[in-house]
Amino acid sequence: MKLLRVGTAGQERPALLDAEGVLRDLSGVVPDVDGALLADEGALGRVRDAAESGELPVLDPAGLRIGPPVARIGKVVCIGLNYHDHARETGAQASAEPVVFFKAADTVVGPNDTVLVPRGSVRTDWEVELAVVIGRTARYLESAEDGLAHVAGYAVAHDVSEREFQMDRGGTWDKGKNCETFNPLGPWLVTADEVPDPQALGLRLWVNGELKQDGTTAEQIFPVGEVVRYVSQFMVLYPGDVINTGTPAGVAFGQPEPKPYLRAGDVVELEIDGLGRQRQELKDA
Amino acid sequence: MKLLRVGTAGQERPALLDAEGVLRDLSGVVPDVDGALLADEGALGRVRDAAESGELPVLDPAGLRIGPPVARIGKVVCIGLNYHDHARETGAQASAEPVVFFKAADTVVGPNDTVLVPRGSVRTDWEVELAVVIGRTARYLESAEDGLAHVAGYAVAHDVSEREFQMDRGGTWDKGKNCETFNPLGPWLVTADEVPDPQALGLRLWVNGELKQDGTTAEQIFPVGEVVRYVSQFMVLYPGDVINTGTPAGVAFGQPEPKPYLRAGDVVELEIDGLGRQRQELKDA
Repeated sequence: MKLLRVGTAGQERPALLDAEGVLRDLSGVVPDVDGALLADEGALGRVRDAAESGELPVLDPAGLRIGPPVARIGKVVCIGLNYHDHARETGAQASAEPVVFFKAADTVVGPNDTVLVPRGSVRTDWEVELAVVIGRTARYLESAEDGLAHVAGYAVAHDVSEREFQMDRGGTWDKGKNCETFNPLGPWLVTADEVPDPQALGLRLWVNGELKQDGTTAEQIFPVGEVVRYVSQFMVLYPGDVINTGTPAGVAFGQPEPKPYLRAGDVVELEIDGLGRQRQELKDA
Repeated sequence: MKLLRVGTAGQERPALLDAEGVLRDLSGVVPDVDGALLADEGALGRVRDAAESGELPVLDPAGLRIGPPVARIGKVVCIGLNYHDHARETGAQASAEPVVFFKAADTVVGPNDTVLVPRGSVRTDWEVELAVVIGRTARYLESAEDGLAHVAGYAVAHDVSEREFQMDRGGTWDKGKNCETFNPLGPWLVTADEVPDPQALGLRLWVNGELKQDGTTAEQIFPVGEVVRYVSQFMVLYPGDVINTGTPAGVAFGQPEPKPYLRAGDVVELEIDGLGRQRQELKDA
């Protein structure tokens, strides 16, 4: 299923995109798409039955904002340098273990919402990423297979990054990853049953129509199941938590000087095979 | 006022400790102590009036668990190496700018709840910290005075840390800061009007009755107002967000070998002048 949330920010209602690509209202079936729903097999079954009945009310997508596909996200765990090609372009050694950092859940916005260039920023960068949404509480998992079994679904994430804040201002990467609007997510949460191999997804990103990133999750150093297993050794993952699993090559930081960092007026578009497409216009904060 | 939340985990009710030290039930006045309350001058005024009336129902504290004093915390921003004496003991240079890292809000537990030593951990460490709770949305603040004006109140925080995960496992500090139960908070949220000078508070921590940390917030490199101003340049702070403002000297990591890291069975007690006292027993995860 392709689950989503539509409406003005903070007042989204749950919806789904059916097999024919028709937008349908889910608000009569479940109160929202969130960790509680994703952890509830019974409620997910009701959504599935309703979808298959073909009787859910149709929504007119014209002019309807799409919000983030998950409400009340607890935390966003991010994996750094997780693609062989991206590690090479940054000059970093391939890590022996996943690099873990955080985005606050309040950085998450809808897939087509405005992204703000922070005040004082001259190095705002793009990163298309496969986001994993957790469906079952995960503690000290023992295998990558078990890791995959805790995934409710997948979505497109944009891990917007300010490189000066991230790397040249002292301390950890978090300082350059948590600016307002820095995590567009969606349009859809595609349930895991419809993504048979998360390591065979093409990811692409364009800036002002020019293709900048054109990768595949086959290049991930640590695949999705292993990432979930690994992270669960250091923290508890709860239903509705999100993991951004890293970006492939092609970010501004990896390019020759003058590096083409983002500015107000730029338009970024992102897509992942089967997970939909985002489009953001940049504005000054 | 001293606001708190009492009851079993996940089902706490709001309460206050009155001027005579009597525990009073607030659940007839406000639904909970959270960011929405802290941002609402009218609701805070009703709490204050109710407190002064002396007519709030008395609660029997015997056997009553104390929860974290704030519900629905959005994020916990942490400042590293923010005390001159602690920076010296770790061998770190005093930072030119605050070091920023994150704890997920789901690491927050009550002040006397069990703290779990993570599986595989041999370097679990203690850190008593002054926690700042945000009361007004803060973006790009211009002065430390304005930073202080966005603080709703203060609490004791225990920034439990796993040093191997933090420093020797690749990547950022977050990996050693987010294990389950790693942020006891409370007992009280003391409103800012009752803390006239947050830079004049003694902080103490004991392990098994032995005094390990005995510091003062006068040693903070970046004082509270400056921390709030600084963090607001990199991210938005929302009501109910928490900032742990760093720890003074005396952590296990700063001591000679063999360093006395925490093990199951140890008891840690923490207090800050006027903000109350915590007591945690360590158990294995």
